[in-house]
Amino acid sequence: YNFDSNPSQFLIFGFQIAFLVIFGLFAEYAPSALPNGAKAADEEARMPTLYPMFQDTHVMIFIGFGFLMTFLKRYGFSAVSINMLLACFTIEWGLIVRGFVGSYTHGGHLKIVISLEQLLTADFAAAVVLISMGAMLGKLSPVQYIIMAFIETPVALIIEHICVHNLKINDVGGSIIVHAFGAYFGLACAKGFGKKQQRGHDNEGSTYHTDIFAMVGAVFLWIYWPSFNAAVAATADARQRAVANTFLSLCSSTMTTFLMSQLLDKHRRFEMVHIANSTLAGGVAIGTTANVVLEPFHAMLIGSLAGIVSVIGYKYLTPFLSNKLGIHDTCGVNNLHGMPGLMAGIASAIFLFVYEESRYGQDYSTIYSGMTRGADGSRAFDEKTQAINQLLAIGLVLLSSIITGYVTGFLLKIKIWDQVRDAEYFADADYFETPGDYDFTSRIIT
Amino acid sequence: YNFDSNPSQFLIFGFQIAFLVIFGLFAEYAPSALPNGAKAADEEARMPTLYPMFQDTHVMIFIGFGFLMTFLKRYGFSAVSINMLLACFTIEWGLIVRGFVGSYTHGGHLKIVISLEQLLTADFAAAVVLISMGAMLGKLSPVQYIIMAFIETPVALIIEHICVHNLKINDVGGSIIVHAFGAYFGLACAKGFGKKQQRGHDNEGSTYHTDIFAMVGAVFLWIYWPSFNAAVAATADARQRAVANTFLSLCSSTMTTFLMSQLLDKHRRFEMVHIANSTLAGGVAIGTTANVVLEPFHAMLIGSLAGIVSVIGYKYLTPFLSNKLGIHDTCGVNNLHGMPGLMAGIASAIFLFVYEESRYGQDYSTIYSGMTRGADGSRAFDEKTQAINQLLAIGLVLLSSIITGYVTGFLLKIKIWDQVRDAEYFADADYFETPGDYDFTSRIIT
Amino acid sequence: YNFDSNPSQFLIFGFQIAFLVIFGLFAEYAPSALPNGAKAADEEARMPTLYPMFQDTHVMIFIGFGFLMTFLKRYGFSAVSINMLLACFTIEWGLIVRGFVGSYTHGGHLKIVISLEQLLTADFAAAVVLISMGAMLGKLSPVQYIIMAFIETPVALIIEHICVHNLKINDVGGSIIVHAFGAYFGLACAKGFGKKQQRGHDNEGSTYHTDIFAMVGAVFLWIYWPSFNAAVAATADARQRAVANTFLSLCSSTMTTFLMSQLLDKHRRFEMVHIANSTLAGGVAIGTTANVVLEPFHAMLIGSLAGIVSVIGYKYLTPFLSNKLGIHDTCGVNNLHGMPGLMAGIASAIFLFVYEESRYGQDYSTIYSGMTRGADGSRAFDEKTQAINQLLAIGLVLLSSIITGYVTGFLLKIKIWDQVRDAEYFADADYFETPGDYDFTSRIIT
Repeated sequence: YNFDSNPSQFLIFGFQIAFLVIFGLFAEYAPSALPNGAKAADEEARMPTLYPMFQDTHVMIFIGFGFLMTFLKRYGFSAVSINMLLACFTIEWGLIVRGFVGSYTHGGHLKIVISLEQLLTADFAAAVVLISMGAMLGKLSPVQYIIMAFIETPVALIIEHICVHNLKINDVGGSIIVHAFGAYFGLACAKGFGKKQQRGHDNEGSTYHTDIFAMVGAVFLWIYWPSFNAAVAATADARQRAVANTFLSLCSSTMTTFLMSQLLDKHRRFEMVHIANSTLAGGVAIGTTANVVLEPFHAMLIGSLAGIVSVIGYKYLTPFLSNKLGIHDTCGVNNLHGMPGLMAGIASAIFLFVYEESRYGQDYSTIYSGMTRGADGSRAFDEKTQAINQLLAIGLVLLSSIITGYVTGFLLKIKIWDQVRDAEYFADADYFETPGDYDFTSRIIT
Repeated sequence: YNFDSNPSQFLIFGFQIAFLVIFGLFAEYAPSALPNGAKAADEEARMPTLYPMFQDTHVMIFIGFGFLMTFLKRYGFSAVSINMLLACFTIEWGLIVRGFVGSYTHGGHLKIVISLEQLLTADFAAAVVLISMGAMLGKLSPVQYIIMAFIETPVALIIEHICVHNLKINDVGGSIIVHAFGAYFGLACAKGFGKKQQRGHDNEGSTYHTDIFAMVGAVFLWIYWPSFNAAVAATADARQRAVANTFLSLCSSTMTTFLMSQLLDKHRRFEMVHIANSTLAGGVAIGTTANVVLEPFHAMLIGSLAGIVSVIGYKYLTPFLSNKLGIHDTCGVNNLHGMPGLMAGIASAIFLFVYEESRYGQDYSTIYSGMTRGADGSRAFDEKTQAINQLLAIGLVLLSSIITGYVTGFLLKIKIWDQVRDAEYFADADYFETPGDYDFTSRIIT
Repeated sequence: YNFDSNPSQFLIFGFQIAFLVIFGLFAEYAPSALPNGAKAADEEARMPTLYPMFQDTHVMIFIGFGFLMTFLKRYGFSAVSINMLLACFTIEWGLIVRGFVGSYTHGGHLKIVISLEQLLTADFAAAVVLISMGAMLGKLSPVQYIIMAFIETPVALIIEHICVHNLKINDVGGSIIVHAFGAYFGLACAKGFGKKQQRGHDNEGSTYHTDIFAMVGAVFLWIYWPSFNAAVAATADARQRAVANTFLSLCSSTMTTFLMSQLLDKHRRFEMVHIANSTLAGGVAIGTTANVVLEPFHAMLIGSLAGIVSVIGYKYLTPFLSNKLGIHDTCGVNNLHGMPGLMAGIASAIFLFVYEESRYGQDYSTIYSGMTRGADGSRAFDEKTQAINQLLAIGLVLLSSIITGYVTGFLLKIKIWDQVRDAEYFADADYFETPGDYDFTSRIIT
């Protein structure tokens, strides 16, 4: 076997060995997952609450992202398969990074504590990487995807840690720390990695049936988004509210997506790329405040705007970024995750001044840990400080994702990594055994 | 932009604006979805009970109905996309109508209270409209679908309100008020809207892969039907019973569907339209009594009959309705939702005399609110009155759905609405941008 | 109608009638599914715990197995449809067999008690048969599949009963009694039924889009496998642990599957058959001990090995079995269910000596019923006895599945059953009405 000709097996092998060693040395189950009769009733209550939302999120990661990306006519095998590989890689790597960051913070000795919550947040880490994959889709070899995930995961998780523990922001659905981070890392990576052969490529584009395959992913993302935004909310009422806000926001973004898609087309036709993507923008745009918004109307307004912004982005901004700035974004993640993520963050700053503190019960404590009132009524942050922190988090995410994404894109160009041939961008055949009909099926025309 | 040439954007725009205003004025979250420490434990119990069943129902609405209708060879984009649009439209519109009807009944000032239960019943309202969409599939432009949903939703919800609150019927899985209403509204609409070019059209029919896409929807409907029938049952035992009854009924209708499909074909071959639809008839036929039936055998008997009736319907009744009565039913909703829905209603009247009251515990109160015994042992309805009411509900549903459906079909013919061109019935290309292979892929023959 | 020409309708008809009669005479709902106010709170707790895991398992049976088998280019209708038929048949038949075996053991009069647990275990019985179907895929007529299920179900359930009640083994995810049994029954059946025309057949193989359809099934199996392995675990901590162990094992087998798939290909390309199947091997290999393993590292190690073994199996063992031993295994169930199932069983014996009893709380009782300590500290089995019993169960499963599978394969060759024509192995058209594009779509080449 000739490892030198293609280093990716060697790298996957090395990573899996390293992960095994690290888990062997440091990983252990949380007490709630270990035999202990006394806690049974308590844990019995957690499993029914969290587990279904965890599984819904799991469907989003593996079916949702995986099939959404099958729209390319010649890249379906890669889309759904590499999605799986990157998700598994990032879940393992994310568990390690998060475990070590958490241990460091708590000052104890290094350990990786595994519980259902950790597996859920590992899925969130996978989402970051898969969003970036959307921007790079079709342009990287398997080993390059892995390298990208290896670099992106610790940066994203450390920035998340700073946002949550130092800035004490609320971002219950991860719109800032997952969606915006993943999108702008991906865009910057696309810029750093870009060359002109990636733009206007013959292989880019869909066929009739691959657009329908993509809808399997899109519709499952749509259905389970409420679980994604509600899963880590602290109380039952907040979870129900997060579900309802996300649901209403999604309905609204779907309405405005259809409206705008037809409105901006000179033949008054809908575009499937809008329907598969912009309908979901409401889920992102409500993400940061899904547990905050108290009036259904506000959720609908955010969703409506998100759909509008997203379709306009696909129609005008994506071609502009590609043609004028050399930022080729295969799936248009800027329109689904980027701009709606920024909207979510900005909305979170605004909402601090929309509702009275009294409407959240005793205080904001279940939402903003920094605004918990002490016995004397004082609190670390007031509304203005919290709002500034929410905005600081956006800035930090933008800065860190763009810098590290750009550097990553640059690193991926180094010839030590296997590079996709120019003719084979957005195509499976160099990396997957394809059936005899592959060329025919993926090239049929009228 | 030229709004006059195609009014649908204008209408979607107008509706979404109107919905936003109405939600802004009248909508509020239920107390259980608002911050309130005291109720946390109670709500913690509701979310795990209801939320997974809500999400299962959600999959049925968006994946189930959406993909089931992708079987048409040239209408896959429309099927899954317009399904999404109509569902979102009906969910928003249904929340408003139900809120107002409820407010009116309770005599308070107008308000729309949003909770997980309301979102679930909004999904049920969407099911009504999507069933009617099945009968009209391929014949309407987007704006016509929206107009149909706009008219149908309030009629269906008001009739449902009368059935549940005045006639006090039990219809836990909505077989009368959702399935039968949606089916007969759709059939009457097809009659009112019908013209001969819609029948025997070249574009009607499937391809090998679109029939497989349809099975994604069919199988998910099959899997989650128990949740649909159990979600609103009042007690935990009733929910478990509704799940088990629906499960057994579906297994039985699947068995008889395969039996009948082969039996009625002269070459002894199965037809995919039966397998994608009639297998589900058991879920409809047990729907009204899923919480009532106490013997597994009875559930299996109902399911067995439903499968038989449904396949016979597809084989003989659908062509007869189309050719002789001018009722063209694209998906055969009469066979999946109509006749099995009527079976469910009739069965509900019969079952009132099958089991003793004593088998339901203290009294029938958790199932039939009108049969609750007071302190003196008296009750508003006896078995006979309740049975008559169940039958009256069927009559009311048939009458109202057929009249309003027919009138709607007639209204949709008015030329102010964008009309599908005769050559483009059951085809995407007038309303969706289609990839270059669209004509080839949807017209390939041996 | 000419029943003689094709007996399968007659048989399905006869079975469904017989099942109806048996359910009519013997089936009843469990108390938890019957009206009974007193138990409400208790059952309220069971539904949220078990029902979501039941539904996840349901998705695996009907979507997972059904779509995984659609990879064949000309057999998609049969794969997803016959999967449904066999599952329903086996669920009904399995409920009967299990009810009677249970009644016999408890010494009471015959009855079939239906509860959510019974429906879940009926899904497990369906899994056994569907795994065997994978080995026979494309080679049997509908009636032959039914006969196979009719024979296999009682044998599998009786062997399971002996393993669980007499040998008192732990096999929480059914890797021994479901996966290994189903796989080796299927392989032996393939041997007994084999003829050379089944090997190297033109119809065997996939097309580009059918490989993507198969991934719908594969990814849903991957996602919901943790529920399959955790559903029947006795305590909440065991369920959480089973979920986490399965999750980590699956991530690891996915990593090693990609590694090995590329490594063993001379062009360094991935094969979709590995990605759709071997990635799942970690779910099988951890199945028996998902509730036992206490260190995350051990779960990852098992998953890593399972992926390696499975890919090697597909690459070298499946062709060897087919070419040298005449065992044609269409889906390669030996590599996904057989060998990983044996690994799971062997691991269960080893793990008895890996962890101290004290780590499981008071004793092993929630995992190994035979190792419960009495008041005097004594127990029926010690670690060594339990380990031997786990190995005895493997032996019993292998012996019984191979003998009955081989005999079944032989019986299926008898000419009284409708036989698939040699030219039509792995093809739909003899048993399904196919659209006009069927021949074209399933035979397109470069």
